[in-house]
Amino acid sequence: MGSNQYAGGGRAATYVGDGRIEVVENPVLDPAEGTVRIRVAYTGICGTDLHILHGHMDSRVSIPQAIGHEMSGTIDAVGEGVEGLAEGDNVTVMPLDWCGECPACRAGHQHICQNLDFVGIETTGAMQQFWTVPASLVVPVPAGVSLAHAALVEPLAVAAHDVRRSRLQEGEHALVIGGGPIGQLIALVAQRNGAHVIVAEPNADRRAFAERHGAFVVDPLHDDLAAIVQERTGGAGADVVFEVAGIAATALDAVRHARTRGRVVMVAIHPQPVPIDLHRVFWRELEILGARVYEREDFERAVSLVAEGAIPADELITSTVPLESTLEAFESLTNAQAMKVLIDVQN
Amino acid sequence: MGSNQYAGGGRAATYVGDGRIEVVENPVLDPAEGTVRIRVAYTGICGTDLHILHGHMDSRVSIPQAIGHEMSGTIDAVGEGVEGLAEGDNVTVMPLDWCGECPACRAGHQHICQNLDFVGIETTGAMQQFWTVPASLVVPVPAGVSLAHAALVEPLAVAAHDVRRSRLQEGEHALVIGGGPIGQLIALVAQRNGAHVIVAEPNADRRAFAERHGAFVVDPLHDDLAAIVQERTGGAGADVVFEVAGIAATALDAVRHARTRGRVVMVAIHPQPVPIDLHRVFWRELEILGARVYEREDFERAVSLVAEGAIPADELITSTVPLESTLEAFESLTNAQAMKVLIDVQN
Repeated sequence: MGSNQYAGGGRAATYVGDGRIEVVENPVLDPAEGTVRIRVAYTGICGTDLHILHGHMDSRVSIPQAIGHEMSGTIDAVGEGVEGLAEGDNVTVMPLDWCGECPACRAGHQHICQNLDFVGIETTGAMQQFWTVPASLVVPVPAGVSLAHAALVEPLAVAAHDVRRSRLQEGEHALVIGGGPIGQLIALVAQRNGAHVIVAEPNADRRAFAERHGAFVVDPLHDDLAAIVQERTGGAGADVVFEVAGIAATALDAVRHARTRGRVVMVAIHPQPVPIDLHRVFWRELEILGARVYEREDFERAVSLVAEGAIPADELITSTVPLESTLEAFESLTNAQAMKVLIDVQN
Repeated sequence: MGSNQYAGGGRAATYVGDGRIEVVENPVLDPAEGTVRIRVAYTGICGTDLHILHGHMDSRVSIPQAIGHEMSGTIDAVGEGVEGLAEGDNVTVMPLDWCGECPACRAGHQHICQNLDFVGIETTGAMQQFWTVPASLVVPVPAGVSLAHAALVEPLAVAAHDVRRSRLQEGEHALVIGGGPIGQLIALVAQRNGAHVIVAEPNADRRAFAERHGAFVVDPLHDDLAAIVQERTGGAGADVVFEVAGIAATALDAVRHARTRGRVVMVAIHPQPVPIDLHRVFWRELEILGARVYEREDFERAVSLVAEGAIPADELITSTVPLESTLEAFESLTNAQAMKVLIDVQN
């Protein structure tokens, strides 16, 4: 899509390089044809945003640039030719911009387009008062759903995609390795699907969170996870293992805990090749599945789950801070105690 | 199953440890209830048999023991309670003995039973004149099919299983890494399914074999396999990659050649964990599938393929040697020029 399809406006928390974010004020432009301008309500901070702040993704962003892609807001102006969306609608945005022409797109896998642009990384992001995006990316949020909760839709869509890709069935056993925000959301969606869930997580607060919300929890640094998985699955192993920790040792371990013909979903990002026990993969005829972002149906499922109150949204939101405190909010996340921190862009 | 379900008899090429095979003569016993006694015609030598000879599997075999599991023969005597099989029937044997009680068996995956015994490894094998096995393992071979050709059914069933597990469709592109006997059979089955096949193999004789039988061949040590796969798939990558070489570098490479949402089937045995690019698995939402042995339908498909003349059986059989030359035949295989060597057990 053309770059004029994306625009920001108003006060913006802007990544200026060197680990710094500054709040600047930009003009508010009218939305171009086929786009809508959203008055942003809340924007969550994602692990990817932390990577941007730390300079790991400077080749993809255009400094200075407002970042952020987990958001909610209200349509403020509608460009020409947009149908089905109106001023005043509460919405969120599925932040994927595919080319439509590569082999992946032509095969129907647009969400993993070979030339994918991620909105809020390759384009201006949502940590600003006004955000203009193509209407095709806008996902309506039903009236009555809190806008703070709606800012959780994007990470929840990741979890919904991961669980859907795993083909997890009611009554199956799922092991989630890693109890950060995405791991917790996967555990919640898996339980919503009727699965028995074990969460392996060394952090006691995160274990407590998972346990409060129905998971069986294990501290893998102190307990024998393999023995526990065996015991709880009648000696079979887990039907599905989600590797969400992103550590070489947990990737190796994930394969070990899966049952014969079990599915191992690789959710976390492993920048370097990591050793995998292919003999185990062969011996048990395992299936290792990559899962990345989401498709439209995952986003819509996530909206429904939030609307139904299926996730403990208030508890997942550790804190909400004003736009001016964005940099401090980023810094608070590096201690890994927080679940989800929202930037309140309204004030 | 009880060990009295398996018996040998007559002259037998017997593994006696220390890299040695001796031909001994054993009594010929009547078949127990539920079993049939087969007069063996031909027994192929498998890579696993080489591992046994080299002492790598001494914990699984009972020295002295006749080995071998790729075979054909004619039923010679039928035990009590056996239905549907008669003296004079030409047959082969699916050499898997599952427990029927473990979680894998209960889930319907008996062929990868958690307590699987492999007939000819954990039991006496087929390199002997008479071989008694449970009737349930016997697979009929139609009259008119050469018994030498029927000895190829077992490895062909492996290939049929690998291809079925890959869900390879007509018109798709398959890359086979490794042109040994199993790689060649996979390429043949894949082409029979209507796929376009590339075989990557450094040995010129093996490349020539694959090329004669319809594959596009690449020498990965001299040509740019990645560029060729890209070019032949319109920039998409292979729909399916079969890793049959069993080298760490080819396992790493296999993942690189697969298209978005492509399937990578791990056929070869990798005894140690090997580095896998999980970022690529994530980025392209790949599927890595373990594939081991076969199910009954794969065996029956293999019988049909041999009966239809769908594989160049005479060309696959590099040589046929008498039972007395078994040790020499094993030694000839270590030079990797031969495809399949059969022991003729009839004379």
